[in-house]
Amino acid sequence: MSRTYLDWNATAPLRPEARAAMIAAMDVVGNPSSVHAEGRAAKMIVETARAQVAEATGAMDADVVFTSGATEAAALALSGRELAATAVEHDCVGAWVAEDLAVDRNGIATVPDSANSALQLANSETGVMQSLPQGLAFTDAVQAVGKVPFAFSWSGAQMAAISGHKFGGPKGIGALILRQGIDIPSQMRGGGQEMGRRAGTENVIAIAGIGAAAAAAAADLDAGRMQEVAELRNILEDTLRQGCPDLILLGQGAERLPNTTCIAVPGWRGETQVMQMDLAGYAISAGSACSSGKVKASKVIRAMGYDEDIASSTIRISIGATTTQAEIRGFAAAWLRQFEKFRARAA
Amino acid sequence: MSRTYLDWNATAPLRPEARAAMIAAMDVVGNPSSVHAEGRAAKMIVETARAQVAEATGAMDADVVFTSGATEAAALALSGRELAATAVEHDCVGAWVAEDLAVDRNGIATVPDSANSALQLANSETGVMQSLPQGLAFTDAVQAVGKVPFAFSWSGAQMAAISGHKFGGPKGIGALILRQGIDIPSQMRGGGQEMGRRAGTENVIAIAGIGAAAAAAAADLDAGRMQEVAELRNILEDTLRQGCPDLILLGQGAERLPNTTCIAVPGWRGETQVMQMDLAGYAISAGSACSSGKVKASKVIRAMGYDEDIASSTIRISIGATTTQAEIRGFAAAWLRQFEKFRARAA
Repeated sequence: MSRTYLDWNATAPLRPEARAAMIAAMDVVGNPSSVHAEGRAAKMIVETARAQVAEATGAMDADVVFTSGATEAAALALSGRELAATAVEHDCVGAWVAEDLAVDRNGIATVPDSANSALQLANSETGVMQSLPQGLAFTDAVQAVGKVPFAFSWSGAQMAAISGHKFGGPKGIGALILRQGIDIPSQMRGGGQEMGRRAGTENVIAIAGIGAAAAAAAADLDAGRMQEVAELRNILEDTLRQGCPDLILLGQGAERLPNTTCIAVPGWRGETQVMQMDLAGYAISAGSACSSGKVKASKVIRAMGYDEDIASSTIRISIGATTTQAEIRGFAAAWLRQFEKFRARAA
Repeated sequence: MSRTYLDWNATAPLRPEARAAMIAAMDVVGNPSSVHAEGRAAKMIVETARAQVAEATGAMDADVVFTSGATEAAALALSGRELAATAVEHDCVGAWVAEDLAVDRNGIATVPDSANSALQLANSETGVMQSLPQGLAFTDAVQAVGKVPFAFSWSGAQMAAISGHKFGGPKGIGALILRQGIDIPSQMRGGGQEMGRRAGTENVIAIAGIGAAAAAAAADLDAGRMQEVAELRNILEDTLRQGCPDLILLGQGAERLPNTTCIAVPGWRGETQVMQMDLAGYAISAGSACSSGKVKASKVIRAMGYDEDIASSTIRISIGATTTQAEIRGFAAAWLRQFEKFRARAA
């Protein structure tokens, strides 16, 4: 059976540019810390990718610390700081902060003390985007990079975390971006890699991938590809609402990412919908993908003031540059068929 | 100019089996934490690799926690424990322990309190191998895996760190192996990956690579390939000693890895030799590769009781399964030519 992948916020397909860069890097044997020709060739791959990531995120090369992903970047940035945040942060941020700030019904946060707060740029489940206050200590930019313009240097944030696999790089590589002068204690110690901020032999192949993906994602964004994605997303939402007038569209009063739709039908559990759509050939998700096997109400939706029933009945459809209108229409038709069955059972 | 890579302890060439597994994994789009078919396919790659690593290291699947490398594995195992160790440990271990235990002239350690100590299986610079005492808290098995038989379950150690790129997997992936019942505090928090012991989306492509490399390395070891490597190593050492009778061969009184030669010519600085050999087409190293740009006397050689002059005059030649006798003889001839020039200058 042919499959349609509509779960880009969980992880995006590897971009061809990233794949090619990774395969090329496989032939470079050296350790970037070695001084011989093989080592220097590996080092050049790392530094080329660093420049690509810096350019795509509006940062300086020296600001980019490669990590094994955004989870590590968040740990590196947030461990030992006592930042405030809302409950709509991703778990890898939530684990380190006091989630006592509130969001409104659309998921928009108010951050009174930006210098001591963390705030995401965009929510992975709803796509809701925040305006970052000046002087913010940390932003989780994972879901925003590659989908909307982002320039770290203009963002006013002191630190930002990004993840390669959300914009077409491989899984297992990300970066912490640091404003000059911000000091972080290295949590991995040993060799002096990443200017002493993160020890461990560099993941050369994955770094080649994140660099190429960052450049390709920035080019797509410049070329208006994400506007096309937003048009597809709008077709999806219009089609679903026409077939299901009671549909709840989470965050619809807020500015949202161009690729993300989060909907709820009270009483029709999100996990059930995910399984039904999976059987029909469509990959979507209920809540964040990050917690294997966990099936529980979305804390993001709860924080927006919705009840447990609705928070347990949300699904996320997230698309990308290679998603087609036929896929969108196919999904909408399949979902509406299941919705009619649900309504018939519930009646 | 053709190049000869003799720095396998810094990083080994990617095995063809690892390369193929990684390229295959590039086409699997899912996040291993997603419940749909794409997610399950990614999860299967991770669990297949976990079984391969477990089998190759004589551990149980559930004992293997994938990390971004041995540096992270060491941090995960050692942070917050106050283990004792010798000064011949790798910096990524040394950063977390009290290096107050002594080694003898051959680099062999005596560990009085194994339950509260860390001890490497083999040294990266000299290849010297240790006998692990029963009940050891932690062993750095990075340089041993794939070169000599190692079975975690029989080692008597509570925890072991391994690194994929030392046995033909990619850089940026490793594992902490844990005896059942050993608890570690997760340093990366968020999703419940790796059974709650290490959050963050799994590095699926690199994990596919370490799994395939572990299986291939174990097969090579079983097939006697490392005995052939030892024979080449012996040819190298005999040739160098014949041409340079005053050569100091570090750790020669100890059991050593089959692929590692560490030599010193007093007064001929290791970094100079590395550059001269690099210009002649040979990649070797002076000391550990892990500390970019650092040029200083080897603390490993110092700990063995050699003086600063000798500790600054060591080089390491480390070879592997695809090294040829022609390469070895070519290197020996090139090195002896440079040695004659050094001797002429010094005279």
